[in-house]
Amino acid sequence: MISELQSIVGENYVTTGKDLAAYSSDWVGWYSWEPLALVRPANTAEVAALVKWANENKTAIVPVSGNTGLNGGTHAEGAVMLSLDRLNKIREMRADARVAVVEAGVIMSQLHDAADGLNLVFPMTFGAKGSAMIGGMLSTNAGGSNVLRYGNTRDLCLGLEVVTPQGEIMDLMGALHKDNSGINLKHLMIGAEGTLGIITAAVMKLAPKPLAYATAMLAVPDLDDALRLLNNLQQATGGGVEAFEYMTRPYVEAHMKNHGGGEPFDAPHQINILCEVGATAPRDADVQPDGSVPITSYLEDVLGRMVETGQVLDAVIAQNEAQRRQMWERREAAGEVLLSHKPLVNTDVSVALDDVSRFIRLADARMQQIDPGAQPMIVSHLGDGNVHYAVWPTTHDEAVHKSMIEAIEDCVVEVQGSFSAEHGIGISKLDTMSRRKDPAALAMMRTLKTALDPNNILNPGKVIPPAPAD
Amino acid sequence: MISELQSIVGENYVTTGKDLAAYSSDWVGWYSWEPLALVRPANTAEVAALVKWANENKTAIVPVSGNTGLNGGTHAEGAVMLSLDRLNKIREMRADARVAVVEAGVIMSQLHDAADGLNLVFPMTFGAKGSAMIGGMLSTNAGGSNVLRYGNTRDLCLGLEVVTPQGEIMDLMGALHKDNSGINLKHLMIGAEGTLGIITAAVMKLAPKPLAYATAMLAVPDLDDALRLLNNLQQATGGGVEAFEYMTRPYVEAHMKNHGGGEPFDAPHQINILCEVGATAPRDADVQPDGSVPITSYLEDVLGRMVETGQVLDAVIAQNEAQRRQMWERREAAGEVLLSHKPLVNTDVSVALDDVSRFIRLADARMQQIDPGAQPMIVSHLGDGNVHYAVWPTTHDEAVHKSMIEAIEDCVVEVQGSFSAEHGIGISKLDTMSRRKDPAALAMMRTLKTALDPNNILNPGKVIPPAPAD
Repeated sequence: MISELQSIVGENYVTTGKDLAAYSSDWVGWYSWEPLALVRPANTAEVAALVKWANENKTAIVPVSGNTGLNGGTHAEGAVMLSLDRLNKIREMRADARVAVVEAGVIMSQLHDAADGLNLVFPMTFGAKGSAMIGGMLSTNAGGSNVLRYGNTRDLCLGLEVVTPQGEIMDLMGALHKDNSGINLKHLMIGAEGTLGIITAAVMKLAPKPLAYATAMLAVPDLDDALRLLNNLQQATGGGVEAFEYMTRPYVEAHMKNHGGGEPFDAPHQINILCEVGATAPRDADVQPDGSVPITSYLEDVLGRMVETGQVLDAVIAQNEAQRRQMWERREAAGEVLLSHKPLVNTDVSVALDDVSRFIRLADARMQQIDPGAQPMIVSHLGDGNVHYAVWPTTHDEAVHKSMIEAIEDCVVEVQGSFSAEHGIGISKLDTMSRRKDPAALAMMRTLKTALDPNNILNPGKVIPPAPAD
Repeated sequence: MISELQSIVGENYVTTGKDLAAYSSDWVGWYSWEPLALVRPANTAEVAALVKWANENKTAIVPVSGNTGLNGGTHAEGAVMLSLDRLNKIREMRADARVAVVEAGVIMSQLHDAADGLNLVFPMTFGAKGSAMIGGMLSTNAGGSNVLRYGNTRDLCLGLEVVTPQGEIMDLMGALHKDNSGINLKHLMIGAEGTLGIITAAVMKLAPKPLAYATAMLAVPDLDDALRLLNNLQQATGGGVEAFEYMTRPYVEAHMKNHGGGEPFDAPHQINILCEVGATAPRDADVQPDGSVPITSYLEDVLGRMVETGQVLDAVIAQNEAQRRQMWERREAAGEVLLSHKPLVNTDVSVALDDVSRFIRLADARMQQIDPGAQPMIVSHLGDGNVHYAVWPTTHDEAVHKSMIEAIEDCVVEVQGSFSAEHGIGISKLDTMSRRKDPAALAMMRTLKTALDPNNILNPGKVIPPAPAD
């Protein structure tokens, strides 16, 4: 086998044995596995040849790029791992058309830098930006904090190059804002976590670089007021809200305790919102003779009106980049803060914007029934309805943790939400998929997988749970 | 058969014989056919029962809603037509979440009105708004003039209810901005023109209603300057450009001749652009003490700078609603203006924003080679790269017309564009699909169709051309 793989990618690009250590687990250490080998093709043609080889040899292939996923999507026991890291060229930056033509192994921060040089932004960003690659972002339809302004990864993708499960190269690489030439295969591939094809290149959208931000910590009496605040800000800025992040009081306290962070406000508040508004026009960004910046004034105007009506309780606007960073650090520490307590029950759910409040009330009540004294520890991309509803249980009993997750999912179902907002399914949510996903949808996914990948070569066992035994 | 259909939908809702006249052709009269019957189910359950019946009886079903398509997508020779017109309820308007929950038979203007009552907009609009229904808009992923601000129909859809080709009801009706719970079936159904499922309801996005528009006719020296102008306007308004439409000099002249419209400018110009910018914030929309409106001032600022550098040649800003309507009427008359000359060769292609100029140069040259004296008659949604490249040939020779279309498509392929931007495939572009679409993509579409609809019940013979004989 090894020599056959070497004949496709060259002998230096097949890794086996103990050199595989770095590719035998996910970065959080929740999963580990033993792959057969790691191959590192140089280009799309080599990816196609490898998939053809895999079909002939009935060998599973697990594509991997930055390996920063959270659901075990690159688990590769007994499979050949196919790394996209050598497909790392930015093929073209087309500033006037505001697109970048990139290969799957381009690292997110590499694209950030290239866009910055053109006074543009590739607008998606999240913690793993120094490792996550475009291919993985597309395969998982990655999200993050500024989805409410720029959309998910899917919404930033105009064109795609994919190696099919048969090892054919599918060219959908137009930089097109309108394309109704048949069934949309681009969207079928995005978010399929490598089960239906291997994404090798893409045309990604760029956006004008904001010239100034106004960033604030805000306290509101309840989440319905938060939604009104968001809508007012969107109206006042023409859709310029870049982030609208919710942190609960217990989270803020845990952050202070663990990270030594300060209080966001003079007095403690239950609902703490980090809000950032971006301005791309000089007229909104330029410092005025009186020292004010218009984008900040717009934010102040909205807040002023809502303070008067009691819909905003307190507000602190960052006066400089250091204060802005401090506000963001409180939010970005979420992973560490949550993991500072063991055990941790964590979820990644989404609900309609006007259902967040109801969902959290429902879930909070259920948690106290299951484990009185358990501490919900919530952070949320409130602007897009994505709630990372986490809990610090009082017990290490895994059966209790499991029933907590099931109860949270029950509440999600009750408000027609999703049990996987941005992290995907991988292997960790297979059980949930089989219990929670609409049965007709599950059946259709199985049909699609079997039809497109009859030998079950590409990332087998992921995303789609096995059909129940008859 | 009729009695079986009546037993599902009730005897008043099965139409046969000469009462079918209104459902036996498309609205432009390009296609006509003889359906077996027309059934008008009252709800999703009846749609599902009809599809189950069709599978048992191996009878083709052609879904129809507003019947305003342009490519024969509702052609139903020997098939049962299934009208969604009785599924016409707006189930819910959720203003805070900015979504509408609507059934497939809701007419676009009905949704416009409902949104308007909440001070919001359903932002998609086009000529057929008084007839086109949500189901058809989703099935064809309809476009129009303001895609550059709000996206295609697909981008406005958060959730979907679909009857599968097996007659199961698939519930994907969340109002979710993030949902990575498996393979994305919503996007698979949207734009599939009823070949993979029948859309019965949807959750659609609403947007803040612009409080003011600034509308202008602009002349630029070349299309690259037009793109720079668009980018400058997007930056100045934070993405507030609602429309950016291109009309050539011959089109403007034809419009004057046929509709008695006036010249857009004092002197004639080759490149005429209708641009509209919308403002949702009172600060941008409110009339100032000096009588100016900020959103108009922003437009004037950008134009002023570009007039100085010679990148804008002339500009007329609408001073009132009547002038704005006049500017729009010139653009909206495109269908009538084009059809005022027989014969007409028409296309619906898209290219990258920075390829429009090159594509048109290539195509113009080819037209003159094929038919010297032929008159290109171009209108274009320039802001999204969608070019309706039409030609008035000098000859009625259909072979010449066919070679013109092939040549235009050759030019599209040369710049990696799409031969169907917003009108879809239906039956009229099946040949083009088989010749132009990426072979791996075509093969995958065939596999999908066969797997999901093995009895070939739903809208058979549309979108996907038959496989070439071996």
